[in-house]
Amino acid sequence: MNVKDFIRSIPDFPKPGVQFRDITPLLSNPKASEACVTKLIEMLEGQQIDKVAAVESRGFFFGILLAQRLGVGFVPIRKPGKLPYEVLSETYDLEYGTDALEIHKDAISKGERILLHDDVLATGGTALAASRLIERLEGTLIQCNFLIEIEMLAGRQKLEHFPVKSLMTF
Amino acid sequence: MNVKDFIRSIPDFPKPGVQFRDITPLLSNPKASEACVTKLIEMLEGQQIDKVAAVESRGFFFGILLAQRLGVGFVPIRKPGKLPYEVLSETYDLEYGTDALEIHKDAISKGERILLHDDVLATGGTALAASRLIERLEGTLIQCNFLIEIEMLAGRQKLEHFPVKSLMTF
Repeated sequence: MNVKDFIRSIPDFPKPGVQFRDITPLLSNPKASEACVTKLIEMLEGQQIDKVAAVESRGFFFGILLAQRLGVGFVPIRKPGKLPYEVLSETYDLEYGTDALEIHKDAISKGERILLHDDVLATGGTALAASRLIERLEGTLIQCNFLIEIEMLAGRQKLEHFPVKSLMTF
Repeated sequence: MNVKDFIRSIPDFPKPGVQFRDITPLLSNPKASEACVTKLIEMLEGQQIDKVAAVESRGFFFGILLAQRLGVGFVPIRKPGKLPYEVLSETYDLEYGTDALEIHKDAISKGERILLHDDVLATGGTALAASRLIERLEGTLIQCNFLIEIEMLAGRQKLEHFPVKSLMTF
């Protein structure tokens, strides 16, 4: 099974000139989704993980499946104002303006070994902000993994301080 | 194990007077999460399901875990502008103003048996809009299930046209 066959390319979404990689056909196919979870876990090469953290919203899909398969806890990293308890916040630059991510202060304990997951690695800004939140809670970021890497956008260069793996490249 | 012990109550979130039920302690505990998936599936009482649909964002967590455990596809129902392919949209009333939900037009085929999941049943407006999207695609809504039901808000009354189950009530 080639899991790349389950990614649909949508031209000009969310804006002209952007080719959006739609993972909903993958979500719709339980065997293909399960194969992705298996492959994402193989990319860990047996490293011990204490928790999986993932970024809102599309990172949640495979993030929680990874956590369940690994038998570890799941930590949502969310947009501002969504998490109800005490949070740490990290701002990051967008093409125009800035955005921010938040994590619950009690989500990660010092020294816990964290796998960070998101669906797509594009410019790397989101993953970098998420990694900083994990580091500020003194978690150890073992790996950042992605379903899809958009190589042209060179996000990997922003994430050079920790191992980055992706399942598919476009 | 009492899964209710893993729900944290946060007073005055997102606004004064509201007691928010925070599921992040549940997500953080893999055994408690797994127990919830098992109980949510038991609530189906053996009924055959073809797909699980769930509402953005907190519905995604247990929605996709349910789909994986049942070995069926997962359908995200999202806020406007998030789904990249052709969509159906359904507007619903909020306390002030309106909001909308969208589903991909090809997400559900005629006659498919759908389990709709969300984390919390409050006023029922979101679940009702989601159920209409499923019906407009000619899916058969087998059950709407929730982790948490806020009984005081009587959302169940809005959803009287199909079976509603909840794992915990507050």
